[in-house]
This record gives sequence, C-alpha cells and structure tokens, in this order.
Amino acid sequence: MTSSRESTAYLTVSCKDRPGIVAAVSGFLFSKDANIIHSDQHSSDPVGGRFFLRMKFHLSGIESNLDKFKQEFSEKVADKFDMDWSLNPAWIRKKTAILVSKFDHALMDLLWRAKRDELFTEITMVISNHPDLREAVESFGVTFHHVPVEKDKKEESEKKIIELLKGNADLVILARYMQILTPKLIDAYPGKIINIHHSFLPAFVGADPYRRAGERGVKLIGATAHYVTEELDQGPIIEQDVIRVSHRHDIEELKILGRDIERQVLSRAVKWHLSERVLIDGNKTVVFI
Amino acid sequence: MTSSRESTAYLTVSCKDRPGIVAAVSGFLFSKDANIIHSDQHSSDPVGGRFFLRMKFHLSGIESNLDKFKQEFSEKVADKFDMDWSLNPAWIRKKTAILVSKFDHALMDLLWRAKRDELFTEITMVISNHPDLREAVESFGVTFHHVPVEKDKKEESEKKIIELLKGNADLVILARYMQILTPKLIDAYPGKIINIHHSFLPAFVGADPYRRAGERGVKLIGATAHYVTEELDQGPIIEQDVIRVSHRHDIEELKILGRDIERQVLSRAVKWHLSERVLIDGNKTVVFI
Amino acid sequence: MTSSRESTAYLTVSCKDRPGIVAAVSGFLFSKDANIIHSDQHSSDPVGGRFFLRMKFHLSGIESNLDKFKQEFSEKVADKFDMDWSLNPAWIRKKTAILVSKFDHALMDLLWRAKRDELFTEITMVISNHPDLREAVESFGVTFHHVPVEKDKKEESEKKIIELLKGNADLVILARYMQILTPKLIDAYPGKIINIHHSFLPAFVGADPYRRAGERGVKLIGATAHYVTEELDQGPIIEQDVIRVSHRHDIEELKILGRDIERQVLSRAVKWHLSERVLIDGNKTVVFI
Amino acid sequence: MTSSRESTAYLTVSCKDRPGIVAAVSGFLFSKDANIIHSDQHSSDPVGGRFFLRMKFHLSGIESNLDKFKQEFSEKVADKFDMDWSLNPAWIRKKTAILVSKFDHALMDLLWRAKRDELFTEITMVISNHPDLREAVESFGVTFHHVPVEKDKKEESEKKIIELLKGNADLVILARYMQILTPKLIDAYPGKIINIHHSFLPAFVGADPYRRAGERGVKLIGATAHYVTEELDQGPIIEQDVIRVSHRHDIEELKILGRDIERQVLSRAVKWHLSERVLIDGNKTVVFI
Repeated sequence: MTSSRESTAYLTVSCKDRPGIVAAVSGFLFSKDANIIHSDQHSSDPVGGRFFLRMKFHLSGIESNLDKFKQEFSEKVADKFDMDWSLNPAWIRKKTAILVSKFDHALMDLLWRAKRDELFTEITMVISNHPDLREAVESFGVTFHHVPVEKDKKEESEKKIIELLKGNADLVILARYMQILTPKLIDAYPGKIINIHHSFLPAFVGADPYRRAGERGVKLIGATAHYVTEELDQGPIIEQDVIRVSHRHDIEELKILGRDIERQVLSRAVKWHLSERVLIDGNKTVVFI
Repeated sequence: MTSSRESTAYLTVSCKDRPGIVAAVSGFLFSKDANIIHSDQHSSDPVGGRFFLRMKFHLSGIESNLDKFKQEFSEKVADKFDMDWSLNPAWIRKKTAILVSKFDHALMDLLWRAKRDELFTEITMVISNHPDLREAVESFGVTFHHVPVEKDKKEESEKKIIELLKGNADLVILARYMQILTPKLIDAYPGKIINIHHSFLPAFVGADPYRRAGERGVKLIGATAHYVTEELDQGPIIEQDVIRVSHRHDIEELKILGRDIERQVLSRAVKWHLSERVLIDGNKTVVFI
Repeated sequence: MTSSRESTAYLTVSCKDRPGIVAAVSGFLFSKDANIIHSDQHSSDPVGGRFFLRMKFHLSGIESNLDKFKQEFSEKVADKFDMDWSLNPAWIRKKTAILVSKFDHALMDLLWRAKRDELFTEITMVISNHPDLREAVESFGVTFHHVPVEKDKKEESEKKIIELLKGNADLVILARYMQILTPKLIDAYPGKIINIHHSFLPAFVGADPYRRAGERGVKLIGATAHYVTEELDQGPIIEQDVIRVSHRHDIEELKILGRDIERQVLSRAVKWHLSERVLIDGNKTVVFI
Repeated sequence: MTSSRESTAYLTVSCKDRPGIVAAVSGFLFSKDANIIHSDQHSSDPVGGRFFLRMKFHLSGIESNLDKFKQEFSEKVADKFDMDWSLNPAWIRKKTAILVSKFDHALMDLLWRAKRDELFTEITMVISNHPDLREAVESFGVTFHHVPVEKDKKEESEKKIIELLKGNADLVILARYMQILTPKLIDAYPGKIINIHHSFLPAFVGADPYRRAGERGVKLIGATAHYVTEELDQGPIIEQDVIRVSHRHDIEELKILGRDIERQVLSRAVKWHLSERVLIDGNKTVVFI
C-alpha cells in the first residue's frame, strides 16, 4: 500500500468455482501486458463452492484506457464465468463519510490516519446527531454536519443524511453512531457501511456490552467491525480483536481499555475495505491480508 | 511455584470489606514469626464491597502445628471479620479426578503436565463414558474407570461416579466430558469442578460451537475454563483465550486449532486453582496471577 | 483509576525483605483510620531479596495533613526498615514534559489521552529539535518549544532544555526524540525519563530497527518503553508488546504497523508510571498492574 | 489439510519475477484438467524482485502419471522462467527424524500430533545424545537411537547420525538438541533441518536465553523456529511467538512458560514445512498460511 499507485488497479472477482478461472484471468492480464503485483484467491469449496480472487496489477497507461479495459474483460472473461467483479483504480481516492454520536475515539483515529494518508481516502464529511464534536472534526479541515435525530422523526433525519451522502460516499463508517439505521439507508449502501461494535460478537449483541461483559466476569473484552445489514449486529464480520482484562477492572476501566481495541479494529477494517481486500461471501467475509 | 514447598502454606480469605483486615492478618502472621512470600488482595468496591486476599507464607515447623495454627487464626482473626477462609498446605498434593469422553487432547495435556510436576497434584483417576482412552491413560500409570452412561440411566452412572470420587477428589476436571452433570454431583463439589468449554463464552453457549463459529464467520475462536454450576455454561469463568482464524479454515481446521487453545486454557485454570489463586466472587472469579 | 481521587494517596515502598513489613505498614495505616483500596507486593527473593509494595489508600482529610502523615510514617515505619519510599497524593496532577523530533504518532496519542484525562497529568510543554509539530501541539492548548540541536552545540541545547524543564517536569517523555541525551540531563531525572524504542529490546538495539527487522525476516515486530539511563537502550524495561508481520510487509509497512505498537506501549508505560505502578529494581522494573 | 489428499499435489515455485508466470502455470494446469484448490503468490519486488508461488491442485489419476507430469511442466513452463520448483504429492507422507537431548516437551508435542495425524508425516526415528527419553519415545511406537556425543569425538557421532538418517529423513527436527551440528550434516539437508530456539531471535542468540531474559527484565519471552544454517541461530526464521511475563516469574517459571511457546512454535513450523507452505528467500522465509 506504500508503493506507487500510478497505473495500478485492483481486480476483485467472485463466482462459482470451476477449473480455468485463474488461467483465464491471468491469461487476459498477460495478453494486455499487465504485471500482477499481488494475487490472492480462495475457494469456499473446490467442489460446488464459490471462488474469490483479488489481484493487484500494474498496466502502463491504464489511466486513459480504463473503460475499454473493463469492457474487454467483461466480454472475454467475466461473462464466461458469470463473475461478480469490480476493477478499482488504485490511484483514485474513494470518498468516505463518517457517522458518529458523542464518543470521539474511533472517529479521531480515522481522521488522524486519513491525515497521515494511511487510509488513502478522502473524508468528505462527518455527520453527527450531536453537535459536540464539531470543533474536533473541523480542526482536521473536514466538514461537520449536525443532523439531530428526534424521537418519532427518525425518517426525516435519515432523509437528510441520505441527501448529504449522495455522490459523496463510496463508504459510510459508523464510528460509534448510536442510532439504528433504517433499511432505506442500509439498502442504499450494500456492503458499503462498516460499523464498529464494542464487543466480541456474537457475545453481547445489542446495547451496553461492557457492562454485561463486566457482570459476566469475562477475562477478555473485544470489538468487532462488520458490514451493516438489516439484522442488528448480524452482518458479515470483517475484523475482531480482544484485550485481556481481570477482576481489577471496573466497568469504567473496561470502557477505557475497550476504546483502544475499538479504534484499532475499526481502522484495520476500513483500511482493508479501502484497498479492496474484503470480499463478501453471504454472511461472512473473505479478507485477503 | 517452583520454590520449596516445605513449611509453606496458602491463606485465602474473602469477607465484607472494611478497614483493618490486612493489618489483622499480617499482624497475626508476624506474631507467629511467619514470613509472607506473596500477597495479593482485591476489593470489589472499597465501600460496601467484598474483600479478597491470598497470602503465601513460610513458617518453620507449621507441618506439625497446622490445626492449632488454624484454630488460633479462626479465633483471633477470621471470626472478627466474618471471613470465608481456608489454609492450604503447599507441601500436600491435592487429589484430582478427570472426567473425559473421547477427545484426548485436554486430558493428555493434564496428564503430561502432572507427570512433569507442573501442577503439583496427584491424579487419582480418569473416568470416561467410553472405553477408548484406557490405554493412553494407563500408560501414565493412572487408574482408568469406564462408566458408561446409558440413556435414561444417567442417575445410575452418576451414582457410580460419586462413589469413585468419594475421598479421592479435591478437584474434578471435565476435560471434554460430553455429559451434563446432575445437580447432585455438582452440589457435592461446589467450586471444585472445572469444565473446559470450546468457545469464547458467552458466545456459542451449548453444543457444537466450532460449527457455529465457522458459520458466523468470526475472526477469532476461543475456549473458556469455568467452574460448573447448575446452569449450563454459566458458571464463574476462570480463564479464556482466543486464536486468530480466517476464511481459510474450515470447521475441521477450527477444531484442530481449537484443541490447542482448549488445552492451554484448561491447564492454566487447573494450575491456578491448585495453587489457590482462584477465589469465587458470586458468578465471577478473582484470579491472583 | 477512574474512581474519585479525593483523600486518596499512593504509598510505594522498596526495602530489604524481612518479616513484619506488611504488618508494620498496614498496622500504621489502620491506626490512622486509613482504608486500603488496593495493595500489591512483591519480593525478589524471600530470603535476602528485596521487597516492593504499592498501596492505594483512602484517608479522610489527608489533604490538609500530608506532611505530618509523612513525617510520622517515616519515624514509625520507614526508618525501622530502611525503606526507599514515597507518598504521592492521587488528587494532584503530576507535570509532564514531552520531547519529540518529527514523528508525531506517539506524541499525538499522549496529547489525546491527556485531553481525555486518561493519564491524569498536566502536559506542561512539548520540546522539539524541529519546528514541524508546533501547530499540532498548540491545537491541544499545549506550549511548544523549538530547541534546535546543532552539531557540536548539543550541550547548549540541552542547557536550554534543562532550564525549560526546571520546576515543570515530574516526568519527561521521549516520544521518538532522535537525540541521545547527555548524562547531565539523565542524572537530573533519575527514573523519571521514559523513552519509547521502536523494537522489541534487546533485539535491534540502536538505530533503524525496522529496517534491520525486515532484513532479518522476523515474524513479529515490537516496541519497548524503558527508563533512560546512561547506557543507550539499556535502562529498565517498563512495557513491551509485539505485532505479527509477514513476508508481505515491506519496511515502510513495518514502520506503519510499528507506530501503533509504539504508541500503545508508550501510553501504557506512562499511565502506569503516573499512577505509581512502576518500581525500579536495579536494571529491572516491578510493575503492579 | 484435512480434506482428501488423493490425486492432490503441491507445486512450489520461485524465480525471478516477470510478467506471465501465473498465466503460464495456471494455463498449463488448466490444459491438464487440473483444478487449483489453493494458490498463494508473493513478489519480493515487482520490479527486479523474486517471485514465489504455492499451488495446491487436484488432478484425477496423477498418481500413476507423476513423472510425466513433472517432465512436461519442466519443459513447457519451468525452463522458460528458470524456476526453482518442486512438485510434492499430498498423498505421500514425508519421513521425519527428530534429534533431541533431555528436554522432552517439544518432542512429545510432535509425537503426539503425529499420532493424531495433525502433521501427516511418518516419524522414522528419534535420535538422542542421552538415553533418558527412550521409554517415552518407544511408547509411541517410534524407534529410538541413543548416539552419545563424547568430547572430541563429535565427528564420529555425527557420522553415525548421518548413516541413520540416510534415506529415512526428508525433514530433520532439532527439538531441543543441545549440540551444535557440523557443516557436514547441515549441508546434507539444506532447508530441511528445523531448529527451535528458546528465545525471540535475534534477542538472546546463543546459550541460556531464559536466564538472560530474566536478568534483562523483558516483559515478553518468546521462541523461534528456523532453518539451520552454518551460522549459529542465524538461519531463515519460519515462525516466532511470545508470551507475557512479569517480575513475578523467576527463571524456573520462565522456563516452564517458555516450554509451551517452544512446542507451539515448533509444531506450527513443522506443520507448515510439511504442507509445503514455507519457501526460502535468501535468509528469510515466505510462509503461505
């Protein structure tokens, strides 16, 4: 991710597994004089399973030629194997919007990494249902929108959010946004909304996981980054991590320790998503790292 | 734990927290010329909480004097603070019985560590509802009892188990014993039965956790050692750990990886229990490590 | 660490181990009506070793009585056991100064945690040999001093630094400060300068550890927080951690991954130091966590 | 690794990177009606670097056709790209010999995993310079050879070892063998001798690493599995791991904790080697996991 992005693209593919896929894809790329820099593949089952591929390749001059390249790939390779596929230029920054409530730790970590260009993205806006984080966000030169969510008027708020996002978000991140999204918003960004849940899912699904973890006396607490689907906390998991805790930590301390895990897990998931490393396989993910 | 065990004892205490406990205990030990080697304490809440203490001390000649020492401690210290307490000689091996079904990995690890004297215990017997592991167990010089559990005759089997255990078990370990114990057996060994559950509890409570972990697409799998109570998989957690997995691992591979975590987690819990490091606090544990 | 700090203090003690120390200390505290909230102790060897103690206690009204309390403790307890000891009020923020060069990640993490009051300290200043980070520092409302270090004029620069620190630093943090300190500065802050080294010491002592780690093909990279002594990278280690890497990571990526470990390790070490959890034992540390 | 091994083979390749390699290899396999089950590749540098590939493929009837397949691959693909390559049938168990001295933990773990068929290998013999472990080894049904190493007669002993190994070892494992091998033995098994070193290399190269780790006061101890080369402890690292320790652990306890890491790290390295996941890249390894 640190090498030059010029003339470089990510090809991701998923399709029914059968012989000849790699030969077809690599043969096509070779015929175009493309050089494969990285390649990862996975088959959920060689017999009757699903095949997943991510290739990073370099092809001089692809910048001026992208549409033609895609059309040819579609005709010569993708159609034959009935592929779900995408070709993403590595030289273009994707647009990211962040939704947040009052906790700033996950948000700050993302803004900071974006500023250092660890993520290679353009953060187009931060939207919050509270005004508190305006100053912190604007100090990074990022636009802040306060969209309050009033009881019984959720739909109105979401309508406003959808308008703000339109054309400005290839990815939406819920960085501790304490509102449940409606299907309308979720359906508009399939596989493009990442949430951070502050527990090691599927343990402690729902609200207040640190309190429940403390009460259960677990010896590890965790965090989970997942794609948002209509079922609460049930979407495909991208990344999880844990930290050791003990009887010495009260619930406030669990929350402080948890913050560090939350922001690391979310940042890794976002970084992987933005470099096209995450492919969705039903309710699971294939993550090529 | 490797230093000499001669003239050495573990004192564990739990009681309502209030000022003066440490002064009273350490004053008593000093008056007896005992030398405190290690001491750990914890208060669940300094105001109105519960106090927990573990002390390892050395006192020349305590071997011939233990009962008198205990009586005096009871009268001069424990009664005043209404303590739950125990004094365990470090020089005496506790008796441990292991229950197992067909999986041998957790069992073997325990037998092996016992043989190397990592655990400082006497394994008095292994009981199994299957005959398969007899040879493996007996090769360690340990007695093996086959107690089949027939449908609708569970009570009979448990009666036999209880008889076998009588006088031979300060600790009972369920090293992947695939039978649910009846309250009768559980109540006979309060805080003295340790089970290994092959998931990161409370995720995947119940049967077949690896399959369910695989289907949910989690990125870490784990294991949990806990004391057995009447509620299935709900007893106080002693130790947990996890290992990273990915889309590349099918369910068989999760099981293989899981074995390593299971046996490590169980062995740690057993070792800590046997060196009096685990104190029960309601449905949680205080583990002094 | 999140509970009230009012009327609360940390007592730390180290002395030659012998019977009666805990009885004397806890007896004294009890006689003053103090309530011990936490207590940890360690003996490097019960016979002829060194004894270490940290107690956190609550004593109503100690705020107005601190000097007298200390004097009495000294006379009645500390002198008798020839103790190295300190008593630190939990309600007073210690003053911290940070030295940094151009890398901002460790610095930012500290400023951020200080702002959220995770560290309970007052950051009095940031000193850098480069002007680059002025704006970032000042955005936190913290004073920034640019003290260039010119070749052959190091002593002059250090003189200036020592003047700036005077009275303003109970703790000095080297958050990737790329200059070697002279003995004069080190001796002025014994056990009070914490450095973060970007390797898992003692591997890759000295310069450019990520490059050397990459060339050696290690499978884990790490970071080490330690007290600064006159011997480069040889001071007592406070905390270390590692992260898994592979052949896929080039040296630039090792540096990016390493940043996350560096800032976590340093922040933990600083937090522990500031809550009096770190006691120095020759060239090692006892960390009560 | 748990799926059927019938008609399945591993192809590993390393060569100078240039466009067309994947197309050539996958095209060849497709032309033979082989189905690629897994594929991993790595380039140390797309421009002027080295290319590494591991493919697991299924080809009906390859059992009776292996030599012809290899010859054709050599002529049509490998020669053109000047490849270092090997084709290993997945259905044939490789032969493994283990050298050990007195510590049994790493050895036992390997024998145990071999018995459960986690490793898919045939342990042909255990050779030791001490007689102590004979019974333990033979209880697994494995041949034990006692080859004492007398001062000034090392060469004689090694001669005997080389004879024993001849034809019986595709892999040689040093499972805490406390003798330094001579170049003669090392050269006979290039990239085929795996050693476990009981430290996190390059920290504590050489003897007695736990004592030195304890004296340095590190907060993590580790173990390293590496290929043996003529330079002591300097060969390509295959796997490393660490465990957290503290001031509470004396050197004996470090050794006990270290055992667990040593056997895990060694077992992982051996498992990966035997499933052709480890490719050597100068003094480093590419490990496809």
